[in-house]
Amino acid sequence: MNNRLLEQGKKAREAARFLSTVSASQKNDALVAMARALREGREEILAANAIDMENGKKQGLTAALLDRLLLSEARIEDMAAGVESVAALPDPVGEITRMWRRPNGLEIGRMRVPLGVVGIIYESRPNVTADAASLCLKTGNAIILRGGEEAINSNRAIARLISTAAQSCGIPEGAIQFVDSEDRADAIQLMKMHEYLDVLIPRGGKGLKAVVQENASVPVIMTGMGNCHTYVDEFADLEMAVRITVNAKTQRPSVCNATETLLVHEKVAADFLPVVAEELIQRGVELRGCKKARQILPHIKPATEEDWETEYLDLILAIRVVGSLEEAMQHIHRYGTMHTESIITSNYDNARRFLAGVDAAAVFVNASTRFTDGFEFGFGAEMGISTQKLHARGPMGLEELTTTKFIIFGSGQIRGQA
Amino acid sequence: MNNRLLEQGKKAREAARFLSTVSASQKNDALVAMARALREGREEILAANAIDMENGKKQGLTAALLDRLLLSEARIEDMAAGVESVAALPDPVGEITRMWRRPNGLEIGRMRVPLGVVGIIYESRPNVTADAASLCLKTGNAIILRGGEEAINSNRAIARLISTAAQSCGIPEGAIQFVDSEDRADAIQLMKMHEYLDVLIPRGGKGLKAVVQENASVPVIMTGMGNCHTYVDEFADLEMAVRITVNAKTQRPSVCNATETLLVHEKVAADFLPVVAEELIQRGVELRGCKKARQILPHIKPATEEDWETEYLDLILAIRVVGSLEEAMQHIHRYGTMHTESIITSNYDNARRFLAGVDAAAVFVNASTRFTDGFEFGFGAEMGISTQKLHARGPMGLEELTTTKFIIFGSGQIRGQA
Repeated sequence: MNNRLLEQGKKAREAARFLSTVSASQKNDALVAMARALREGREEILAANAIDMENGKKQGLTAALLDRLLLSEARIEDMAAGVESVAALPDPVGEITRMWRRPNGLEIGRMRVPLGVVGIIYESRPNVTADAASLCLKTGNAIILRGGEEAINSNRAIARLISTAAQSCGIPEGAIQFVDSEDRADAIQLMKMHEYLDVLIPRGGKGLKAVVQENASVPVIMTGMGNCHTYVDEFADLEMAVRITVNAKTQRPSVCNATETLLVHEKVAADFLPVVAEELIQRGVELRGCKKARQILPHIKPATEEDWETEYLDLILAIRVVGSLEEAMQHIHRYGTMHTESIITSNYDNARRFLAGVDAAAVFVNASTRFTDGFEFGFGAEMGISTQKLHARGPMGLEELTTTKFIIFGSGQIRGQA
Repeated sequence: MNNRLLEQGKKAREAARFLSTVSASQKNDALVAMARALREGREEILAANAIDMENGKKQGLTAALLDRLLLSEARIEDMAAGVESVAALPDPVGEITRMWRRPNGLEIGRMRVPLGVVGIIYESRPNVTADAASLCLKTGNAIILRGGEEAINSNRAIARLISTAAQSCGIPEGAIQFVDSEDRADAIQLMKMHEYLDVLIPRGGKGLKAVVQENASVPVIMTGMGNCHTYVDEFADLEMAVRITVNAKTQRPSVCNATETLLVHEKVAADFLPVVAEELIQRGVELRGCKKARQILPHIKPATEEDWETEYLDLILAIRVVGSLEEAMQHIHRYGTMHTESIITSNYDNARRFLAGVDAAAVFVNASTRFTDGFEFGFGAEMGISTQKLHARGPMGLEELTTTKFIIFGSGQIRGQA
């Protein structure tokens, strides 16, 4: 048991009580100060990041992971601008989403309030430290940040700068706290601190998800796992299908809403696959196909059961030819992670069947899976993309960082006969 | 590992896929058939209940628990009428709560869809079997019911009748399933079946809550724990305060929204306590007070730390005299279960401070805590009262048994530059 972590929990709980009644303008002042602190502290951040990069290279991190870890002046500027943009958003706290009067005269309202204390366990990208802290402060939540070991120096520097800046505006120290530890036991302890944490948001891959499912007693919002599919229907506009498939796979292959498996109706496979394959291979994509796909594209590798299950996050695409829309939906049902699924079709009924029958956070007709994103949806900010069904599903904006409470105005009402 | 339970999970998952697209009228037909089956099967239910009652008496259950367990013709009729009233409510599934267009022409809608498979672990009252099953069927969810051991015969009979009736209307067998086991290991296995269950709703006391927190990997909506307070402010209308306190404690003491501790401002304690004590004692309430309360009411028992923490669910009331509104709120913050809290005051600022500062599912001004209830709030039905912050907080109606998915209509949109 790490007592420092328990102390952090207690401080966060106290800070959350205070934050729940802080005015929007005070929170915004703090956010602006945090953005300034990031800009003014960029040398400190870059120096810390250089240590992480050096350690990462020594430990043999892949080029993709090193790129996620790397900070530059431009990336720090993006981070600061991100914090400022959160300041500019409306404060959801205190909004009464509905109010009604009951026959007995009670007036019942539903008011948005902060969740309380948010714990976040994340991997790699240090900008999450500033993003998550600013979204939580905006919504009146205290946050406990537990970043990946590989980014600990960068995260520590960022957290120190923004927490100090927020304190200079009267925000308590407990509001933004960083778990300065590389010990996995601490992450697991954090998952069990339900006395102090109201919600835990893990951002990472399969391994983290399994550890959280095994250990967490804090309520969890699972984010970010995306084994997404694009299904090209027999009635697809094939030119559009090529454009969308290429975009969904290659525009940014390392993110969760990139397409990992292409499903193609057998009636259009022979026309469609050679064209899309050429475009994809040109862009460096490795293709792996089922038996039928390889009859059309004999030069590609065979896909195995494991391929259907894998979120590559890389320039690799699995291809399966299916006999029907139903078969495509069954494949998605079996292998998908309920993140984002897209159908390309010009057929009204098939579009409706896909929309109704596919169980995912976001279901598209005739557009790239890459659009599942808080900014693209118009939410102005994003805490992650939830792949679970409770509380938040899909891109999480500020509202998803709040809960509600019922406020009831009476004039002496009692129930039934006392 | 109980394989029968795993089979039930698989069947529920399949049934949920089917249910998600069943029409409202088919679901309503099934609900009407279920109500009829309860009425026609009342002899069978009463015979099963007689066995449970006999076992309960042998095992020495308290009179209160036996009363919760007991079924009668009237209670079965209430159960059937409850199922019919669910049929009469609007179906929330398929509702588009919002739809908007993005600058790139994407049309994004948020649609209500079923959660999928709901597991419920409940104690004592057999009517929960019919209530929970009907609410889940209405919302297109499959349900796995795991009732208390003491009611297993009653629950089995009810579940068999309603499941058979639903099947006669084309609802699959997997939609309403009963865990026919008294083995606690099975309940724990159910809590871990995240592959098949989308949500687990425990309805019970502290013991169940602890077991769930320790074991569940399925996302949980915790319900029903209510250590509720009524605070009589220095500016209270004392006549109103007496009426509300008596109602909040005695109108139905065995339920979660009954008041368990009375907090009284010291400036009105001497006037208020003797009057309210007389009324309460007349109604058989045992009072336990802090030192200051006992200076005014010397004949009552002393209250200990344990009293502040206890949800009596009985005709017992703890009383504490406080020096300020802030002290009252601190007591609630420390001992409350974030269920229901009420202030009695005629002071505008104090009402606002209490509403803003108290973190609970329902916060009242000048009304009885007994009103926190799905029917009293006008929701028409209730699956339980959530005391957690994620997804559902307070009385859970039909909407809280749904989640949403984003549906997006495109015309070939791709993101950025491919």
